Formats: sequence, structure tokens, C-alpha cells
Amino acid sequence: MTDRSVVADAAITTGPITGSSKVYQEIPGVPGSRVPFRRVHLTDTREDHLDLYDTSGPYTDAAAAIDLQAGLPARPGVVTDRGTQLQRARAGEITAEMAFVATREGLPAELVRDEVARGRAVIPANHRHPESEPMIIGKAFAVKVNANIGNSAVTSSIAEEVDKMVWATRWGADTIMDLSTGRDIHLTREWILRNSPVPAGTVPIYQALEKVNGDPTALTWECYRDTVIEQCEQGVDYMTVHAGVLLRHVPLTVGRVTGIVSRGGSIMAAWCLAHHRESFLYTHFDELCEILARYDVTFSLGDGLRPGSIADANDAAQFAELRTLGELTKIAKGHGVQVMIEGPGHVPMHKIVENVRLEEELCDEAPFYTLGPLTTDIAPAYDHITSAIGAAMIAQAGTAMLCYVTPKEHLGLPDRKDVKDGVIAYKIAAHAADLAKGHPGAQARDDALSRARFEFRWHDQFALSLDPDTAREFHDETLPAEPAKTAHFCSMCGPKFCSMRISADLSDAIREAHEQGMAEKSQEFADRGNRVYLPLENSVP
Amino acid sequence: MTDRSVVADAAITTGPITGSSKVYQEIPGVPGSRVPFRRVHLTDTREDHLDLYDTSGPYTDAAAAIDLQAGLPARPGVVTDRGTQLQRARAGEITAEMAFVATREGLPAELVRDEVARGRAVIPANHRHPESEPMIIGKAFAVKVNANIGNSAVTSSIAEEVDKMVWATRWGADTIMDLSTGRDIHLTREWILRNSPVPAGTVPIYQALEKVNGDPTALTWECYRDTVIEQCEQGVDYMTVHAGVLLRHVPLTVGRVTGIVSRGGSIMAAWCLAHHRESFLYTHFDELCEILARYDVTFSLGDGLRPGSIADANDAAQFAELRTLGELTKIAKGHGVQVMIEGPGHVPMHKIVENVRLEEELCDEAPFYTLGPLTTDIAPAYDHITSAIGAAMIAQAGTAMLCYVTPKEHLGLPDRKDVKDGVIAYKIAAHAADLAKGHPGAQARDDALSRARFEFRWHDQFALSLDPDTAREFHDETLPAEPAKTAHFCSMCGPKFCSMRISADLSDAIREAHEQGMAEKSQEFADRGNRVYLPLENSVP
Repeated sequence: MTDRSVVADAAITTGPITGSSKVYQEIPGVPGSRVPFRRVHLTDTREDHLDLYDTSGPYTDAAAAIDLQAGLPARPGVVTDRGTQLQRARAGEITAEMAFVATREGLPAELVRDEVARGRAVIPANHRHPESEPMIIGKAFAVKVNANIGNSAVTSSIAEEVDKMVWATRWGADTIMDLSTGRDIHLTREWILRNSPVPAGTVPIYQALEKVNGDPTALTWECYRDTVIEQCEQGVDYMTVHAGVLLRHVPLTVGRVTGIVSRGGSIMAAWCLAHHRESFLYTHFDELCEILARYDVTFSLGDGLRPGSIADANDAAQFAELRTLGELTKIAKGHGVQVMIEGPGHVPMHKIVENVRLEEELCDEAPFYTLGPLTTDIAPAYDHITSAIGAAMIAQAGTAMLCYVTPKEHLGLPDRKDVKDGVIAYKIAAHAADLAKGHPGAQARDDALSRARFEFRWHDQFALSLDPDTAREFHDETLPAEPAKTAHFCSMCGPKFCSMRISADLSDAIREAHEQGMAEKSQEFADRGNRVYLPLENSVP
Repeated sequence: MTDRSVVADAAITTGPITGSSKVYQEIPGVPGSRVPFRRVHLTDTREDHLDLYDTSGPYTDAAAAIDLQAGLPARPGVVTDRGTQLQRARAGEITAEMAFVATREGLPAELVRDEVARGRAVIPANHRHPESEPMIIGKAFAVKVNANIGNSAVTSSIAEEVDKMVWATRWGADTIMDLSTGRDIHLTREWILRNSPVPAGTVPIYQALEKVNGDPTALTWECYRDTVIEQCEQGVDYMTVHAGVLLRHVPLTVGRVTGIVSRGGSIMAAWCLAHHRESFLYTHFDELCEILARYDVTFSLGDGLRPGSIADANDAAQFAELRTLGELTKIAKGHGVQVMIEGPGHVPMHKIVENVRLEEELCDEAPFYTLGPLTTDIAPAYDHITSAIGAAMIAQAGTAMLCYVTPKEHLGLPDRKDVKDGVIAYKIAAHAADLAKGHPGAQARDDALSRARFEFRWHDQFALSLDPDTAREFHDETLPAEPAKTAHFCSMCGPKFCSMRISADLSDAIREAHEQGMAEKSQEFADRGNRVYLPLENSVP
């Protein structure tokens, strides 16, 4: 990374999130280890803080010196010569990465090892990306969120993409994917990897296509393989590979409303059809496994035939490919390579659960990683919402990681605002699913925030929220004065009509009445048919 | 309405929605009748338009003369002396309102009559609000959306509220509720009713409380009754009545994280507790029914004890009140009054369906009308999203109308932007549910939009979307030039990487291959174990 102009241009956001500070927890038995948490400081007299899972890396640590040119420091404990996390888990080893994620998730390290060994969870951690903080993707753990960034031929610069990466992780992105397709693909990725505190994924076919000047039919296995090796060497943690798009699947898309909407899928379909040969990703899959195993790069088996519209959901093409991904999962696991499976796309609500059920059945319970799904096609500019609905539901059903969709989906490349809007919408979906799954500890944050809300601790409410800055800004639009931050009402109802104020005022009275045996009295009422205090002229029939 | 300054201040938005125009359809057998639709004009050669359900009234009719001072014209066919829609449906009559909504929904008039007669659907249509266009709320029909507007003691003016009403219906609000609690409650409501093309709801206890200077304990049945009559006379179509908050329910809220969060609920709880008497809404319920029946005002039985946090969802207080609402439903129906039931609130995803199941069981399948529910408490400023997730799911399960939640929920009063954001989020939830329920015709819009998307008919895609202006604006941020509106790519991928372009280009090739018997060939492949074209050295185990 020698281009200093990138650094000069990059205006990244650093410093703690409002109301919080960075703390580190030691892994039991590993002196000096540092697992990061966001500590929210509260004015509650019963508990003065709540520690939250923190994806934002050193950028939110007031004590950290950030130097984009130098990149983030490497974490200790990276082992490069003992195979993949999967292989080591099978051998009974609790790796440094497993211990890290166990502390991070507040779950037993043995559970982590077991889920990884069974292939129900993955820890994407390329030996050559020591800058990232280990994280785990699997249905037994907190639901994760990926944010796509990357430039295209039409827009954006390296500095902007580095900024988006830091920005996305600030708001909670658990991984990022660099989907650049424009100029400087290699250099953009280098800047992102060296500065990313979270695992980074890519779709190598994009860069391979760039190398053959954008002509899908000119692609070769050799060109693709060399690109994969280049990216493995650089430190990419997981790669989307559309090896399930087979020649015989392509005709299944004929009757579709929106054909093939995955870029990788359409590229491979074009190649297969032009050469009338089977996809080189499929025919060379063993060789690909051997390469990924060397670096412990995780497969993200792409759904190149995912539905791009409600009409095409759960169709023959989609599920034929899923069956092939199941075959490939077994092959990859045979090589000791970690695998997750990508999922749709556009799916109406009543067809969502079937996707998870089939994926688990066909793909040996490999972690499912879905794009949304969008639950309707009619709201371009609001697809973070159409898809947050589907994302929450599919995560409740078992999806381990959600790929965000931004308001710009179908319309253009996301800018900084879109990235944040997409991440927040997906943190909501992921957390709603954690609650619905009863994930240990998930509800503590809801409860702390609701207590703050009920007790009019406005600053605490802001600090506990997914986006303290916007929550405070919205509150201040109508009541900007500092005293309003402790006032027992807000502009919604004004002082007289605040239900929470009335309710809070009532609390003592209710408690008192309760103690005086009102419960017993109400039983009497119930015995009389719940009709007490009814004047005779109004007796209810 | 004599205050001309209101008119002078009101800057409402009129004119057709981009890409659409207003058309009217005659009700079969009723010459001269006019049921409004939004006609989206398409450049598709196979179908040149799609007609959509239209809530926006004359404001989007280029030919209509709008005069806020005069109010909207009265619709023909209003009958005031033959009782309620429920009574007339039971008598076998298909009213003008039933015929109107049947045409509007594209469903048989007899289905409408039957659902109303059974109390599974309501047509809120006060005889004294002839300005509104009839609509139906029931699980057999399209899911509806309500938008809350209204000023508070802290903010807003009459002109702003009229503007919000027009604005909300422009984007698809099926009803509006005027929740004003500040000055000029009567006059604000008058301006809204005389100009509203959709049914309007209120919570009369708010105005009654204003009359006793905000002291809940000073409320009396007489004050409340007179307020209800005043609002009935004015033309309010449905009223939220928190008659299910009983004295014996109040102690059940003691252990809650957020106590009582409904304004009406907290007011009535305070009254009951202060007087240690049963709620006058409950004891005078028969009298209330007689009043509402005279005007055909619909009950919206309020959930005064709804949960205000994830922790309090589906608790004893909530369900005790629901049981009481069930009793009251039977009483109201006995009086021939139409009834719907309000629902929560804050509910985690796994507890949503139980709410619908219990409501249907206890309340005789009266239409359910829910606020969200929010599926997590941790995202103030994004509660239109936390709740759109819950709203879509609860509507899929059978909720008939969704009360929107705006980004300002918990933080302040919604402004114009918040109203639109809330309505759009809820139109998404409602439509996603319509798709999931297989509502007749719902998917036609998704299919038309997706076809436009796949064929790069950008203007058609915008026009078919819930918000054409924002969709276009987002597209134009990166590719503003007019030729980009027909270009076969967008800024997401640029020209080389557009999967839709590659896929579209592929279509002919795929079709050709298909015709040449590729399907048969792939059967051969399948017969050989799906291994064709695999070089021997890479044969997949």
C-alpha cells in the first residue's frame, strides 16, 4: 500500500459510539488476550453498564492509534500450519479463534468447537488476514450481518470504499464483502483487507472477468484459479463460488419472469452455454478445495440461480442448484474446507421457511447465508425494508448470516448513508431473530432500553439504541433543550398525555392497591361474573 | 370551517402520482357510480396499463377542483335511516357501500355482505362523513393501513395536519386517525373530516381529558358521553374505546417492565384506581353502543394494556383485557354495532401468531387492528422497520388492518417525511402479507414491476413502485441522463457486469438450446449421475 493519496482522501469515522466506550475481556486461561466489547454506560442505579457484542474494531477505541497506511495490528495466536478450523475442530482442538468467539458470544468454547467440527458453523479466518477479529457464523450463535461494498465501473474510489468498510463495521456489520468490479480491484481489496477488523469476502469471478475484458466466454479455469490464489494470498476470508450453476440447470430458467439475476450465475451460464460444456467451477471443484484448504478460506457456495422476483421463488432452477450445492458441500468438507451456502433473493413470506428446511436437508446443515429475502418486488428505494421482513423470518427459521440490502438495491450503488441504513435494518432483523430464537442474553438489551424508556432516562435510551445519534437527533427536533432529556414526557404526547408518565405515577398506587389485597377483591368480582360496580340500569346482558 | 387562515396555510400536494392517472370504474348495475383506481401507464407492448387500488381521493385526479374550504363532495347513496352496515348485511341487503368496496377489491359483493354480516369485516362509514370513499377491513380483503396524525400540546398546526392527511392518503393510507391532544381539537378534526377521502378514527377520551384540563380523575361518564356524541355528529367513522381496562386488570401490570403504555389505558387505569370503581366505559357500554349504532360508527376496542416492551408481550394483563374485549364484542354486535379489536404493540416474532389466534377465538373473529407490533425495543428512530417486520407477520396470520409506526415513534411527533416513511413501510408489510395470503390479484403488481425491471423499462419500474419519485431520484443520483432510463444496466454493476443484461442476452440462446433438446440431454446427464463433461482427473467422488 504505497499510494498515499488514498490515505489523504480517506475520511473515516473514528471514536467511541455515543454513550459507550471500548472495553476488552480476557479469554479465560489466556492471559493478555483481548476480546472487544462496546460498554454502554448507564445512569441506572441498579446496573451502571451493559456490554454489547462489538464489530467495530480499534476504530471505536479512543485509545487506539489508527494508521490506514500501516493497517491494523495482527492478532496473536494465528497458526498457519495445522490446517483449517474445521480440521482442527474435528481433531478436538479448541483454537485461539474458537476461544475468542466463545468469549465474544458468551457461550462455551466446547460448543463452538463442536458446531465447527459438525460443519454447522464456520469461522472465516484466512491465515493471511490476521488483522480481523475472529467471529463465528452458525445457527447456534447470534445471527450475523454482512455488508456489501465495492466500486463499479461507473462510480466510487478506493478511499470511499475504505470509509464504507469502517462505517459499516461501526454500525454492526459482522463481515464485509468487497464486490468491486471497476478499476483497481486488487488495490482496493488490499486497502480493505489490511484495515478490516471483520472477515472479508469476495466473488473471485468478478476480478477474473475483468482480466478477460468482460467477456464471459473468454474465461478459463486457469485464469479463475490464478485469481483465486491471488486473493487467498491477499487474505480474503471467504469466497462466493457459483459452482452449482450447471449446464443442465440453465434451461430451467427459460420460463422465469426475471431469468438469472446473480452476476456470477449469469456469467457462468453464459460460459456454459457458449462452450456447451460443464462449468469449470464444477469440474475443477476438487482443485479449488485444495487451494482454499491451504489458507483456510471458507467457501460461500453461491446461488447463481436464485430468484430475482416473487414469481420465480422456490422454482425448479433454484432448487436444482441447491441440490448441487449439497453435493459440493460434502466434497468441500471431505477436503476439510469450511462451507456456507448462499440463499435467495426474492421470496414471498409463505415460501421462506421451505428454503431453510431444504438447505439444511440437502447441504448437511452448513450455515445458511441469505440475501434478504425481499418479500415483495414493488418497493424499489425501500428494499432494505422489504428484505428486512424476509431476513428476520428466514433468520428465525435458522439462517446464520444475513447479507444486507440497501435502499439503493436495483437502482444504484450504495453510498455512505445507504450503507448505514442497510446495516441498521439488518441489525434489527438479526436481533429480532435472536429474540425469537431465545438466544442467550439477547433480550438484556431490549429490557435495559425499555427500562430506560419507562424511567425517562433519555440519554440511556439513546446510548442503548442501534443508532444513538439519530435517536437523539429525532428527539431533539421538537425538544432540543437539555432539560427535556430528563423530562417525564416527549413531544409525542406532551406533558399531560404521556401514558408512560401517568403509568409511572400510577406505579406506587398500583403497588399499594395490590398489597391491600386488590387481587383478592378482583377474584370476588370474577366470581360475580365480572360485573361489580355495574349500576343496575346498565347491567351487561 | 370559517377560519380562512387555515386554508391559506395549507400547502397540500395534489396532482397525479408520477406515471399514473386517475380512472373510475362503474359499479355493475349502478349507472354513474365511480370507484377510483390509480392507472399506471406502461410502455409494455403486451399490456399498456395496470389499475391499482387507490386511497388518495380526488387530490390525485388532475380533473378535480380542490377547495379545502368547501370540503370534498358527498358521495351518492348514503342512507341514514336503515341502521348500520352490519344490520343491513344481516338483513340480506347489499348496500351502496358494499357494492363500492366489492368493485374496489375486485371481489363478489355477496362475499362483502356475508363477511360484514358475520362480523368478520367492517365498513367504517359514519352517516355524517359522506366525503369518504367506502372501504372494508377484514381478513378476506386486502390488508389495510392506518396512519395516525394529530397535533399535541407541544407542536403542529391545523394546516399541517390537513396536509399530513392528504399526504398520508396519497401514499396509500386506507384510514387516518386524528389523535390530536393539543388546542383546537374540534376544529382540527372538522378540517380533517370535511377533506378526508378515507374513514377517520379518533380516541374520544383524549378530547374528554382536555375538557377536564388533563386530570384523569376528573373524568365523568357524562363528559365522555357528550364528547362521543359531538364526534359522532361531526362524522368520525370509528372510535377507539378502552373499555377493556378493568379495575381488576390494573394490578396485573405491577411486575411489568413498561407498565401501561397506552394513553387511553393509563388514563382509565388512573381513573379506576383513584375512584376505586369500575371503568365508566365498561359500566356504560350499552349506552355507548346505542349512540354509535345511531350513526353507524364502528368500535375499535382499544388495547389499553398492550405490552410496551418485548418483556411484557403476551402477559396476563394483555390477555385478561383481550378476554374482556371479547365480551364487549358480543354486546356491541348485539346492538348491531360494527366492531374491530386493537392489538399490540411490542411482541417478539415467536409470540406474534398467538395474538391472532387468541383474538379470533375470544372476539368472535372481529377484524384485528394492530399497532405493528415492534419485534425488538432496541431501535428507536427505526421503529417503522422493527414494526414492519411484526406487521407483515401478524397480517399474514390474519390481522385485517395495520396501524403504522413512524421513525419518530418513542421520540417525537411525526412530521411530513415521517408520515410518508411510515405509510410506505406499512404498505410494504400489508402487500407482503397479501402475497403470502394469496390475495387475488396482489401479485400482478410484483410481476409487472419485475418484468419492467428485467426488460430495462426504467420508467415503468418507477411508475409501478410504491414511491416512483424516490425510486427515480435514487436511480438518477448516479446516472441522471435520460438515455440511462432505457440503458440495459445501472450504476450497481455498470454495463459489463449487469447480470440482467447478460441474462437477457442469454434468453434467446437458452430458448434455442432448449428447443434443440437440451432438456433431453440433461436427462441423459442426470442418468449418468450428473457427471457429464467431467474430465476423468477431476471426477467428483
